[in-house]
Amino acid sequence: MATAGKVIKCKAAVIWEAGKLPSLEEVEVAPPRTREIRVKIVATGICRTDDHVVKGIFPNIEYPVIVGHEGAGIVESIGPEVTCVKPGDKVIPLCIPQCGECASCLNPKSNCCLIGHLCQSQNLMPDKTSRFTCRGKQVYHFLWTSTFSEYTVMPEASIVKIDDDAPLEKVCLFGCGFSTGYGAAINSAKVEPGSTCAVFGLGGVGLSVIIGCKAAGASRIIGVDINKEKFAKAKELGATECISPNDFSKPIHKVLVEMTGLGVDYSFEVIGRIDTEVAALASSCLGSGTCVLVGAPPAGSQLAFDPTLLLTGRKLIGSLIGGWKLKDALPKLVSDYMNKKCNPDALISHMLPFEKIAEGFELLHAGKSIRSVLLF
Amino acid sequence: MATAGKVIKCKAAVIWEAGKLPSLEEVEVAPPRTREIRVKIVATGICRTDDHVVKGIFPNIEYPVIVGHEGAGIVESIGPEVTCVKPGDKVIPLCIPQCGECASCLNPKSNCCLIGHLCQSQNLMPDKTSRFTCRGKQVYHFLWTSTFSEYTVMPEASIVKIDDDAPLEKVCLFGCGFSTGYGAAINSAKVEPGSTCAVFGLGGVGLSVIIGCKAAGASRIIGVDINKEKFAKAKELGATECISPNDFSKPIHKVLVEMTGLGVDYSFEVIGRIDTEVAALASSCLGSGTCVLVGAPPAGSQLAFDPTLLLTGRKLIGSLIGGWKLKDALPKLVSDYMNKKCNPDALISHMLPFEKIAEGFELLHAGKSIRSVLLF
Repeated sequence: MATAGKVIKCKAAVIWEAGKLPSLEEVEVAPPRTREIRVKIVATGICRTDDHVVKGIFPNIEYPVIVGHEGAGIVESIGPEVTCVKPGDKVIPLCIPQCGECASCLNPKSNCCLIGHLCQSQNLMPDKTSRFTCRGKQVYHFLWTSTFSEYTVMPEASIVKIDDDAPLEKVCLFGCGFSTGYGAAINSAKVEPGSTCAVFGLGGVGLSVIIGCKAAGASRIIGVDINKEKFAKAKELGATECISPNDFSKPIHKVLVEMTGLGVDYSFEVIGRIDTEVAALASSCLGSGTCVLVGAPPAGSQLAFDPTLLLTGRKLIGSLIGGWKLKDALPKLVSDYMNKKCNPDALISHMLPFEKIAEGFELLHAGKSIRSVLLF
Repeated sequence: MATAGKVIKCKAAVIWEAGKLPSLEEVEVAPPRTREIRVKIVATGICRTDDHVVKGIFPNIEYPVIVGHEGAGIVESIGPEVTCVKPGDKVIPLCIPQCGECASCLNPKSNCCLIGHLCQSQNLMPDKTSRFTCRGKQVYHFLWTSTFSEYTVMPEASIVKIDDDAPLEKVCLFGCGFSTGYGAAINSAKVEPGSTCAVFGLGGVGLSVIIGCKAAGASRIIGVDINKEKFAKAKELGATECISPNDFSKPIHKVLVEMTGLGVDYSFEVIGRIDTEVAALASSCLGSGTCVLVGAPPAGSQLAFDPTLLLTGRKLIGSLIGGWKLKDALPKLVSDYMNKKCNPDALISHMLPFEKIAEGFELLHAGKSIRSVLLF
C-alpha cells in the first residue's frame, strides 16, 4: 500500500482532559508495528461508554485520549507477522480483545480476554507505546479501538474481518451496542420461546435486548422506562407492552410480579443503576427467574439485596458485550445481518459527518438520540 | 389399620417458646383428614434449621411447635382420598412440598412449591387446624413435617414413598441435609468433570456438597473452614485440599484466586454468612465462575458487593434443597443410595435414642456433631 510504513496525518477527536468534550484535531498516526493493523475508520457510533471517558468516570483512563469503540473500517496497512487480515479487508475493531491464547480465551465459557482492560490497561499498545501524536504530544489509545479517528491502530487481538459486502455505516453497531443487548438475551440469558421478559432501560442497548428477546421467541416483552417517549420505538422493535415506574405508587417490581403471576422469566437491567438492578432481580420469577445485569454502574458501586431472593431459586448473572467472544462471533453476526436474521438499523437515529461529533454528544446528553453514527 | 381414625398418644419434643430447647412430652396426634397421612417416624436427623426455631430466628413460627424435618418413617394410616401412599409404606416427609398443581410445580425449572413456607405458613395443616395437642393446648406444625414426634401428620403434597428395603435410619438424611448439599453441586451448579470447586463451610451440608462435586468429577475440591478439625472428614469424602482463612493474612478469596489462577469454576457458600457469601463470589473464576448460595443468612440480611464481579462474567445463584423437586427426586436418590451411587452414611456422626434429643442439640451447639440421627 502506498502509505504503508508512513505516518498518516488525519482528523481525530481528542479528549484533552476529563470533563471536556472531544476536540477536532489533526493527529499523526504512526504505522502499525509487529502484529498491529492500521485501519481507516468509515463509521463509528457514539456509545455512552465513550461519554464516561468524557465525564471522567471510566476507570484508569489517561488523557489526552482518543475514544470511540463502536466502529467499522477498512484495513489500510499491516505490520509484520499479521496474518488475520490484509489491506482492503472490511473489519470491526473489538472493544474486548480475543487474543486466543490466554486462560479466558481458551475457556469456552469466558469472553473476558486477559489482555483486555478488565485485567490490564489498554491505554497504550501492547508494547507500551502510542501510535497517536497531536500537537507534538503523545495521545493515549482507548480499548485499542480509538475509532474517533480517521485512522487508528490496533493489535491483531482487537480486530476481525467481516463480510466484504457489509455496509460499514450500519454494521459498526455490532462493535458494541447491538451485540451487547442482543447477546444478553440470546447468548447470556438464553431466552426461551414462550418466556416472559422485562427490560429496564430503553436506550440503544435496551432496545437491542428487546430485539434479542423477540428473536428468541419470547411471548411477552415488557419495556420499563421513566421516559415514555421511548415506548413507541420499543414496541416497534418487539416490546408487547411498556410501563413507567412513575405511573405506579407501588414499587415497579411488585407491578411486574402482579402482571405476570410470579415474576418474569428473564429480567434485564440496561441502565447501570443499583436501584433498578435490585428491582430487576426482584421482578424475576420465584423459583426459576434469571436477572441479567447489562448496564455498568459507576465504579465502586455496591449492589445490596436480601439473598433470600436468590435462595428461592433466582439467578443473577452479568453479561459483558453480550457474552460473545467477539472475534468468533462478529463475522457470524454480520453474516446474520446480511441474511436478514438480525437487524440493528432501527437503532440508528442520527447519521452525522464526523465533524459534527460535538452535536452527537449533545444529542446523547439530551436523551434525543438512540445511536448517532459518525461518518468519515 | 387398628389405629386408623383414632387419636394416638405418643412422645414428641415440643418447643414451648423461642429460646427454649425441645421438651419431651406426651402428645395427642389426631387422625389424618382428607388427603392427609399419619406417619410413624423411625428416625430423624437434627438440622441447624430446627435449631433456628429453637433460637427464634426462623421466620413466621408460632409456638408451641414440634419441629424436625429430616425424617423417615412408615405410613400408619391415611385419610380419605389419599392415593400416593398406603399404610406400611416407607416414606420420607418433604420439607418443601410438591403439590404438583401450582405454577411452580408445573414449571420444570422451579422447586418452590407455592403452598410451601416460602409463600405461605405451614404452621397448621392446609385446613388451618393442627393435629397436635399437648397438655390440652394446640401445638403447631413445622413445614408439615414435625418429625420430632413418634407420630406426625402431613398432607399428600409433603410425602413420598421410597424403596421398601431402604434403611430409614440412614436415608432420613435425604430429607434435607444430604439432598441440599449433593444437589447444590450436581443439580443446581451442574459441576462438570475436571472443574475446580471451593466449598465454604464443612458441616454436614458442606460435606454433602463435596460428595456431589466428587461424584460430578471435579478435579480439585478445596474445603474452606476456620475449624481445622473438620478437614480430615472433608478429605475422606473428596476434598483434595483444605484451608483455613485464619492461616492467611490476605483475604481468603485472594488465596483461592492465587491457588487456581483466575478463581474456581464453582464456589459454594454453605454457612449462611454475608461475608463468606461475598468471599465465595469473589473466589469464582473471572469470566465464567458460578457461585452457589446454599446457606441461609439470618432474616433481613443484605448481601452487598461490587456488581462488576458479575459484569465480568460470574454467575450468582441460590440453591434450595439442592434444586430438587423432592417428590420426583427422592425416590430416585434413595434408589441411587441402594445401588451405591451416592452415600451420606459418613455424615452421621451420632445415633441417639429420641429421648436424648437435648444431647443432640448440645452436640450441634458445641460443633461436635456432623449429623445426629435420633431413633424412635
